[in-house]
Amino acid sequence: MTAYDPNNIFAKILRGEFPCYKVYENDHVLAFLDIMPRSPGHTLVIPKAPARNIFDITPDDYAHVIRAAHKIAAACKQAFKADGMTVAQYSEAAGGQVVFHLHMHVMPRHDNVGLLPPASRKEDPKVLEDNATKLIAAL
Amino acid sequence: MTAYDPNNIFAKILRGEFPCYKVYENDHVLAFLDIMPRSPGHTLVIPKAPARNIFDITPDDYAHVIRAAHKIAAACKQAFKADGMTVAQYSEAAGGQVVFHLHMHVMPRHDNVGLLPPASRKEDPKVLEDNATKLIAAL
Repeated sequence: MTAYDPNNIFAKILRGEFPCYKVYENDHVLAFLDIMPRSPGHTLVIPKAPARNIFDITPDDYAHVIRAAHKIAAACKQAFKADGMTVAQYSEAAGGQVVFHLHMHVMPRHDNVGLLPPASRKEDPKVLEDNATKLIAAL
Repeated sequence: MTAYDPNNIFAKILRGEFPCYKVYENDHVLAFLDIMPRSPGHTLVIPKAPARNIFDITPDDYAHVIRAAHKIAAACKQAFKADGMTVAQYSEAAGGQVVFHLHMHVMPRHDNVGLLPPASRKEDPKVLEDNATKLIAAL
């Protein structure tokens, strides 16, 4: 497997070199809104550890990611009045990964509304700001 | 949310009332092949605890599920010479859930090969047996 590249965009977000709509942080993970959401409230949870994907993350770090995703899913349900939730994590290009720092997608779902295709539409910053505020309030 | 229904098919598998192609088990989870795989080696990890989905599972049980999924992903990579991996968990019908006992999908991926649509084709039992054998050997 290709080695971890510390210049990926999520590593830059972790180092504060690039902004994000942060919604949650603890010692092990950071969570922020996807700026090209597949559903309103689509959030990404990433480990602070430099892991490319499922093949090099430690079991403990992966568990930290899912615990945060779990917490965020509950808050998303409340904040966005979601009927359901889709949680997904893609590893390597073959698995659907585009940014090579492990990230878990938490996507609030509504009855009879499909997910947008990945990275199909950049969301209005005002909407992202509002959604971050709602989600933080529910957390 | 609808209450947990102990007569769902995965609860029956857990009670031994229905067969499965088991690949892994510990005190907290059971893992077996999806009989309608979206990719060769598609495996489901379920908690032994009666959880409907992400909205009622405990944080510890959800972490047990992801730790097993992590282990299985590594074994799948080896057993099926996978180039990537897709991990997904669907909650409620709106989120893509069909069987209402929480399950994490672990789907080995190959370059330029898409996933089959969900539940589109029942796999040949001989193929499932062979895949279970390969996966167990890699675990």
